[in-house]
Amino acid sequence: MSSVDEAHMRSALSLAARGLGNTWPNPTVGCVIVKDGRVVGRGWTAPGGRPHGETEALKRAGAAARGATAYVTLEPCCHWGRTPPCTDALIAAGVSRVVVALRDPDPRVDGEGLRRLRAAGITVDEGLLEAEAAVLNAGFLKRQAKGLPLVTLKLATSLDGRIATASGESRWITGPAARRHGHALRGRHDAILVGSGTVLADDPDLTCRIPGFSPRPLVRVVADARGRVSPAARLFGVEGPVWIAVGEGIARPDLPAELLPLPPSDSGEGLDPTALLRALAERGITRVLLEGGGRLAAAFLTAGLIDRLAWFHAARVIGGDGLPAIAAMGFLRLEAAPKFRRSAAIPVGEDWLTEAVLQES
Amino acid sequence: MSSVDEAHMRSALSLAARGLGNTWPNPTVGCVIVKDGRVVGRGWTAPGGRPHGETEALKRAGAAARGATAYVTLEPCCHWGRTPPCTDALIAAGVSRVVVALRDPDPRVDGEGLRRLRAAGITVDEGLLEAEAAVLNAGFLKRQAKGLPLVTLKLATSLDGRIATASGESRWITGPAARRHGHALRGRHDAILVGSGTVLADDPDLTCRIPGFSPRPLVRVVADARGRVSPAARLFGVEGPVWIAVGEGIARPDLPAELLPLPPSDSGEGLDPTALLRALAERGITRVLLEGGGRLAAAFLTAGLIDRLAWFHAARVIGGDGLPAIAAMGFLRLEAAPKFRRSAAIPVGEDWLTEAVLQES
Repeated sequence: MSSVDEAHMRSALSLAARGLGNTWPNPTVGCVIVKDGRVVGRGWTAPGGRPHGETEALKRAGAAARGATAYVTLEPCCHWGRTPPCTDALIAAGVSRVVVALRDPDPRVDGEGLRRLRAAGITVDEGLLEAEAAVLNAGFLKRQAKGLPLVTLKLATSLDGRIATASGESRWITGPAARRHGHALRGRHDAILVGSGTVLADDPDLTCRIPGFSPRPLVRVVADARGRVSPAARLFGVEGPVWIAVGEGIARPDLPAELLPLPPSDSGEGLDPTALLRALAERGITRVLLEGGGRLAAAFLTAGLIDRLAWFHAARVIGGDGLPAIAAMGFLRLEAAPKFRRSAAIPVGEDWLTEAVLQES
Repeated sequence: MSSVDEAHMRSALSLAARGLGNTWPNPTVGCVIVKDGRVVGRGWTAPGGRPHGETEALKRAGAAARGATAYVTLEPCCHWGRTPPCTDALIAAGVSRVVVALRDPDPRVDGEGLRRLRAAGITVDEGLLEAEAAVLNAGFLKRQAKGLPLVTLKLATSLDGRIATASGESRWITGPAARRHGHALRGRHDAILVGSGTVLADDPDLTCRIPGFSPRPLVRVVADARGRVSPAARLFGVEGPVWIAVGEGIARPDLPAELLPLPPSDSGEGLDPTALLRALAERGITRVLLEGGGRLAAAFLTAGLIDRLAWFHAARVIGGDGLPAIAAMGFLRLEAAPKFRRSAAIPVGEDWLTEAVLQES
């Protein structure tokens, strides 16, 4: 495959990224159709997961798709879901070549889509920018493989890792640019998760306040083992789904929310983090943004359930009497503490963002 | 002044930077001599503060200095110290133009050097890259202006600001590249300062272990209000000056070190940080690297005595039961906590370094 192929696939990947947070439980797929060196159609999975990216791109290409090459970030589906199979649409449109980044591990696809295209006489190349496509689809792939969503822990702290002063003042440690960036992060996730302590202390609405960024409303999830959240909490005043994860046997008919009853954690404190994530995956969630507080973050880190970090640091120091971003985790050996690999360090206004990925041990 | 002038002055500034940490109580000065567009001599202040950078550059230029331009990062001295005045040397060598970045605020110079050059018929331009020269000479200038050295707080922590696990394990939070960078930082400072708790816990030798980086041995200072340090501590086993700042009335004739008796802090806990820095400045120290521990760092931050931060973060999380890098500071309002301005964020191996400068309120 040529550098021209690679450039078109990069373009398809960045189209696909536009769908992040808005297509669950489906993956987000980007498609670029090229005829005689000219782009004749572009598409990505629409909010809600359909139409698929290929359909959108073919619609735009029209008759120009005949004899063209289609660059697709994920293997086209070959089964009837709520939409007809994309393989059939590509064959019907008469494309002569399909370049695919990544196979779809869905057992209903898993290579069958490629076989069907080849059987129709279409040239199929696969594996172009496969690693990049896997990073993009990490949430979809993890849910398929493990029945768990991808979890990103997002924090905004001082250099010494504090999220509030001793008196609880936390607004604002980071500046407006970091807060906007944090809202954009929300828009690229299916659900946001916080502990009930955060709701009681800060009464946030937990929305993505960037217009047009989250056409499908973010699912807001509160881990509330003891059922402490008030029906007057601000998050209930904003449209969109709210799910409250509670301990088994807790009844809260007064809350305008869906309750997810869950077993307690092994320590008996709080809910079992794996059970919580499994319940979200069962409901179709592929990407979760965990925003704290410190105890929930510590429980998820201890359980090895944080896949990625998005850590904003402000150039200030609060001191050891400030509120820690991460509560006690009980690691006595450095070797045992969770280790990540920095993937990016990005200046954001006066602050900066460290992105990191869990280092599998 | 032209872009050619600027390029030569940048070169002189980077020569001057080589002297950082090795010229106290003198400033480090870089000099580039250019004749007919060619560099004919380069020099910087030698370890110990003499010979000066101009003398070194003139020696290399020899007869080629006649009619040449000298780029000097700090106004040439005009008084007899332990060396003859550099103004006289420049005049005697027959240079026709001198470009100076920054005036020397030393009352024995302070514009007199420039006047003397002009009186000898030399063209003098001043103020080229003045701000950069001021950053380079910040320690020398602060000692002149305030009788205090420049203080950089250097820390190596987890993302959540911890310097050790709950059991005290601290080796190593950051990787080998960050540790090497930390040693290079030591080499660019006149003195390193730690609290006695750090000496008791880690028994460091506090040296710069990069060959050739610190031709003049680093002064190692321990803040030890109660005189707890043992004569068997490893830092006494390495050649070079050790100064122990102790509470007034503490006698430790058993220590192979100079004692600096100091008043207590206002809170009564530990030594007065300003008195400690003043004592160092009186002995000629212009640049101090403070490496912790958490209580000493907190005391200096609270007093507004940290000018710069050099903060290494490792992509790991230790949790709220780990040892905090900064002890309690008692700030209840975010507004009151010390705020810095990021000046650089530099990847260093697997870790990264945030450099920041105190934001004067």
